[in-house]
Amino acid sequence: MKIGKATQVRSGICTSNAQAIIVRGHNLSDELIGQINFADHFHLLLTGRMPDAATSAVLNATLVAIAEHGMVPSIQAARMTLAAAPEAMQGAVAAGLLGAGSVVLGSSETAGRLFLRVEEEAKNHGGDLQAAAHAVVTDLRAKRQPIPGYGHPEHKERDPRVDALFAVSLKAGAPQKYVEIAKIIEGVIPGIVGRDLKLNVSAAIPAVLLDVGFPVNALKGVPILARTASLIAHLNEEIADPIGFALAYQATREQEYTGSVPAGFKPE
Amino acid sequence: MKIGKATQVRSGICTSNAQAIIVRGHNLSDELIGQINFADHFHLLLTGRMPDAATSAVLNATLVAIAEHGMVPSIQAARMTLAAAPEAMQGAVAAGLLGAGSVVLGSSETAGRLFLRVEEEAKNHGGDLQAAAHAVVTDLRAKRQPIPGYGHPEHKERDPRVDALFAVSLKAGAPQKYVEIAKIIEGVIPGIVGRDLKLNVSAAIPAVLLDVGFPVNALKGVPILARTASLIAHLNEEIADPIGFALAYQATREQEYTGSVPAGFKPE
Amino acid sequence: MKIGKATQVRSGICTSNAQAIIVRGHNLSDELIGQINFADHFHLLLTGRMPDAATSAVLNATLVAIAEHGMVPSIQAARMTLAAAPEAMQGAVAAGLLGAGSVVLGSSETAGRLFLRVEEEAKNHGGDLQAAAHAVVTDLRAKRQPIPGYGHPEHKERDPRVDALFAVSLKAGAPQKYVEIAKIIEGVIPGIVGRDLKLNVSAAIPAVLLDVGFPVNALKGVPILARTASLIAHLNEEIADPIGFALAYQATREQEYTGSVPAGFKPE
Amino acid sequence: MKIGKATQVRSGICTSNAQAIIVRGHNLSDELIGQINFADHFHLLLTGRMPDAATSAVLNATLVAIAEHGMVPSIQAARMTLAAAPEAMQGAVAAGLLGAGSVVLGSSETAGRLFLRVEEEAKNHGGDLQAAAHAVVTDLRAKRQPIPGYGHPEHKERDPRVDALFAVSLKAGAPQKYVEIAKIIEGVIPGIVGRDLKLNVSAAIPAVLLDVGFPVNALKGVPILARTASLIAHLNEEIADPIGFALAYQATREQEYTGSVPAGFKPE
Repeated sequence: MKIGKATQVRSGICTSNAQAIIVRGHNLSDELIGQINFADHFHLLLTGRMPDAATSAVLNATLVAIAEHGMVPSIQAARMTLAAAPEAMQGAVAAGLLGAGSVVLGSSETAGRLFLRVEEEAKNHGGDLQAAAHAVVTDLRAKRQPIPGYGHPEHKERDPRVDALFAVSLKAGAPQKYVEIAKIIEGVIPGIVGRDLKLNVSAAIPAVLLDVGFPVNALKGVPILARTASLIAHLNEEIADPIGFALAYQATREQEYTGSVPAGFKPE
Repeated sequence: MKIGKATQVRSGICTSNAQAIIVRGHNLSDELIGQINFADHFHLLLTGRMPDAATSAVLNATLVAIAEHGMVPSIQAARMTLAAAPEAMQGAVAAGLLGAGSVVLGSSETAGRLFLRVEEEAKNHGGDLQAAAHAVVTDLRAKRQPIPGYGHPEHKERDPRVDALFAVSLKAGAPQKYVEIAKIIEGVIPGIVGRDLKLNVSAAIPAVLLDVGFPVNALKGVPILARTASLIAHLNEEIADPIGFALAYQATREQEYTGSVPAGFKPE
Repeated sequence: MKIGKATQVRSGICTSNAQAIIVRGHNLSDELIGQINFADHFHLLLTGRMPDAATSAVLNATLVAIAEHGMVPSIQAARMTLAAAPEAMQGAVAAGLLGAGSVVLGSSETAGRLFLRVEEEAKNHGGDLQAAAHAVVTDLRAKRQPIPGYGHPEHKERDPRVDALFAVSLKAGAPQKYVEIAKIIEGVIPGIVGRDLKLNVSAAIPAVLLDVGFPVNALKGVPILARTASLIAHLNEEIADPIGFALAYQATREQEYTGSVPAGFKPE
Repeated sequence: MKIGKATQVRSGICTSNAQAIIVRGHNLSDELIGQINFADHFHLLLTGRMPDAATSAVLNATLVAIAEHGMVPSIQAARMTLAAAPEAMQGAVAAGLLGAGSVVLGSSETAGRLFLRVEEEAKNHGGDLQAAAHAVVTDLRAKRQPIPGYGHPEHKERDPRVDALFAVSLKAGAPQKYVEIAKIIEGVIPGIVGRDLKLNVSAAIPAVLLDVGFPVNALKGVPILARTASLIAHLNEEIADPIGFALAYQATREQEYTGSVPAGFKPE
C-alpha cells in the first residue's frame, strides 16, 4: 500500500561496499574508530559535521548531566520489565525509553523551541530579548500553558547541573546567545507568574546545545541517548541484584481498591 | 502482589538531596559534568569505576564501530514508526532497539560468552587455548549451533572494523587475552567447519571489552547504546526528508499473496 | 523522588484474595470465564459495565473491522523485529504497536473528538448540526489542519467497512447520533474543501462506538487492541515462513545514497 | 543489505483492491464485520480457519481468564509510562507488553511445549502418559529447570481459573487430551519434587487451547492479546485518575542507597 507521495528511498548517512563502511563521508575503520569519542561520533552521524572542540565539550557535558537521576519512573519500568522478561534486555531498555515523553524528558526539546520562539519574537521588539521573553511568557500564562524547562519538584534552588553546564559552555568558548535567552526568561518569570521558577537542567541542555548549532529537531535525542546509558547500568545491576519485583511489591503495599466486590468476598 | 522473595528496594548507582546529585560516589555537577566524556560516564555508571585511559579508548572505539551500518532492518522499523507516530520520537527509538535481538546485535554478548567458555575450557587442557578452542568449536558444530561473532553476510574478508578495533586495543596498551582467544577461534574454524568464517565486529567488540574488564552481562548494552545514537540520527533525517512510508511501499511492490480469494475478486 | 502531588495508589479494576479474583465487582472464575466473549470483557474492564447487546455487537464489529489491512508499515516493523529478535515475540508486538500513532491509527480518537466538537458547537447554532459541522470544518481548513477520519489513500469511494459498521449499528438498534454527525461532516466537506473526502473506517469506528457510550479517552485503544490480534497472526506466519529480512532487502533495493564518499570509494 | 537467503515477500493473510479487503479468503466487509466476534476473528487471522463452537468458547474463555490480574508489574510499567508520556498511549501499551516475558506471561507457551514433549515422550513408553510425565518431570528436576505452569505465588490451592477453564472446555465438547496430560503432570509432581505444585492458569490455557488445535507457536499471543485489553483499561483509568507517579513514589519510599557518597554529603 502506498501512503503519501514519496516512493524513493534515500539517505545521506551511510553507504558501504565489501571493503569499507562510509559514514557521513568518512571511512569508518580508518578515520573514525579510535579517532573520535562516541559523543562526537553521535554529532557526526546527526549533522554530517565533525564537532569543533566547544561543541564536543558541550555535547559530552549535556549527555553526562542528564544520564542518571536515580530510581525515576522509567528506570523502574525497565527494571520491572527485565525481571519479567530477562531474555530481552533490549525490551527492558525500550520500556524505559518509552517514558521519555513530553512530561518527563521531553522538555529539553520544548524548552529549546521556547528559546527559538523568544528569538523570533524579538524581531517584533527591535531585537529586545527582554521584551520578547516578557511577551512570550505572558502569552503562555494567558493560555495556561506550562513554561517548559523552568521549575523542579525537588530542587527549589537552581539545579546545580545548570551552573555546571553553563560553566562548561563558557569555558569552551561557545556562543552564549541561547544561554542568555534562557536566563532572561528566568528573570521575567517572577514578575509574570508571581513566584520563582528556576531554570532546570531541561532548559540548560537546549540552551548550551543550540548555542553550538545542535539541530532543534534532535534535542529530544540527547536525553534519550543519555538515559539509554543509565538504563543499561541499572539493568546490569538488576541482573546482579534484582529489585524489579520488589519495586512492584512496594508500590502497591498501600494500594486501595475503589471498586465493588461480590457478596461474601473478604479482602486479605 | 508479591512475586519472588525480595522486597527491599536498593541500588548503588545514584542518590541525591536538594543540593547535590551523587553518581557512583561522585558529585555529578562538580566532578563529572565537563570533566569526563560520555562513554566514560557510561563506564562509571555501569561499573562504579572511572575507566583508565586504555578502557576509555577501547570503549569509545567499540561504540563508534557498531553505531551505524546503513538502512538495516531496525533503522527501517524506527523510520516507519516515526512516520506513523511523529508525536513520539521515543517510540520510534524503542521500535528500533527492539530489533537488537539474538540474531542481529545480540552476538556481541554471545561471542563474549564463547570467549569465557574457551578460557574456562582451557583449564581442562593444561591452559592450552588452542586445544580449548578446538574442543568448544567442535562441540558447537556437533550440536549444530552457530559460532557467534564469526562470518558476515556482506564482508567475506575480515570486516575492516575488526582490525581497527584490535589496533586501538593494542595501541592503548590494553591486555590482549581475549583478543588472542578470538583469533585462536578464528584459526581453528576452517579445520572443523570446512570453510573460513572470519571474525566479525560482533566478536571483536567483546574481545577488546573483556580485555579491559567490561562486565559480560552488559556486553549487549554496547550495541544497544551505540545503535541508539544511530537511530536518533536517522530519525532526525526522517523528520527533514521522510522515507518511512516509501520504505514500506518499496518493501511490498513485489509482494505475493498466497491465500485464497472469494469468487469474483480481481487483484489490482 | 516525588513527581506531582498524588501519592496514594488506588484502582477500581481488580482485587483478589487467595480464593478469588474480582474484576469490576464480578468473580472472574465464576461469573466471567466462559460466560462472556473477549470483547465484552474488554468493555467491562474499561467501563465497569457489562455491555448490552447493541454495544457488544458494535464493539466486536469495530475490532473485526480494524484488525487487519495487509502488510502495513507497523506489520513490517513487527516482522523485521521478530526476524532480528526471535526470542521475544512481545518485543515484536510492541514494535508494531508503536506505529499506532497520530498519522496512522490515531485518527479513530481524533475523529471521535471532532464529532464531540461538532456536537458542542451545535449549541451555538440552536442545535443545528449542519451549521455546526460547517463551522468546525471551515475552522479546520482555515487553520490548514486535516479533517481526521475523512479520505483514504487507496479507497476513493467510501471504504466498504464504513457501510458495514453503520449497518451493524443500525441493525443492533444502537443510537445514531454520532453516526449522523459523521455523515453530516462528510456532506459539508465538498462545499468547503472543494473535493470529496469520504468517511473512512477511522471515522466510522468512533461514530458507532460513541453512540453506545464508549469512552472517548479509550477510542485509541480499539485499533490498538485490534491490531494486536493481527500482529500476532503475522508473527505466527513469520515463524513458519520468514519474510522479515526480505522486507528490509526489498525496501532498499533502489536506495539512493545522497552523502559524500572518500576519494577512491566505489559503490557496489 | 541482504540478510539470509529469502528475498521474496509473501503472505497469505490479507489482500485488497479498491473495492474490497480480503482476509483469509473472506470479504471483510460482507462476511466478517458484524458476523463474528473478535476472538473468532483472531482465530481466523491466525489459522486461516473459522473456529467451530468449541474452539470459540475455549479461546474466548482463555482470553477472559488471563486479561486482568490487578496492579501487576507490567501494568505499573504502563501506567508510569503514560504519566511520563501522555501523548503516546501506544507507547504505554508497548511498555506494558514488554513485560510479557519468559518469567511472567511466557509460561503459557513453555507449558504448552511441555505438554507436547510429554506426548512425544509417551511414544517411548508404549503410549503411557503417566510414565512419560514422570520421565519428563524427573529430567527437568535433574537439570534444575522449572516446571512451567505449575505453582503460583499467591494461590497455594489450584488457581480457580484453572477449574473454570477446564469446565468450559468440557462443556464445549472439546477434546481433552492435553487437559489430561496437564493433570497427569500435576499428579506426578509431588512424588518427584517433594511438594504440591498445582496447575496454574498458565498451564490451563495451553492445555485447553492445544486441545482445539491452536498453534503452539502462537500460544504466547493469547496472554499478549488478553493483557492488551487490560492495559487499555488501566490506561483509561490512569487518564481519569492518575497514579503513575504515585506508584513510582511508593516503590522507593524505603529505598536503600548502597553506594558511597562524597565527604560532607548528607542524605535527606
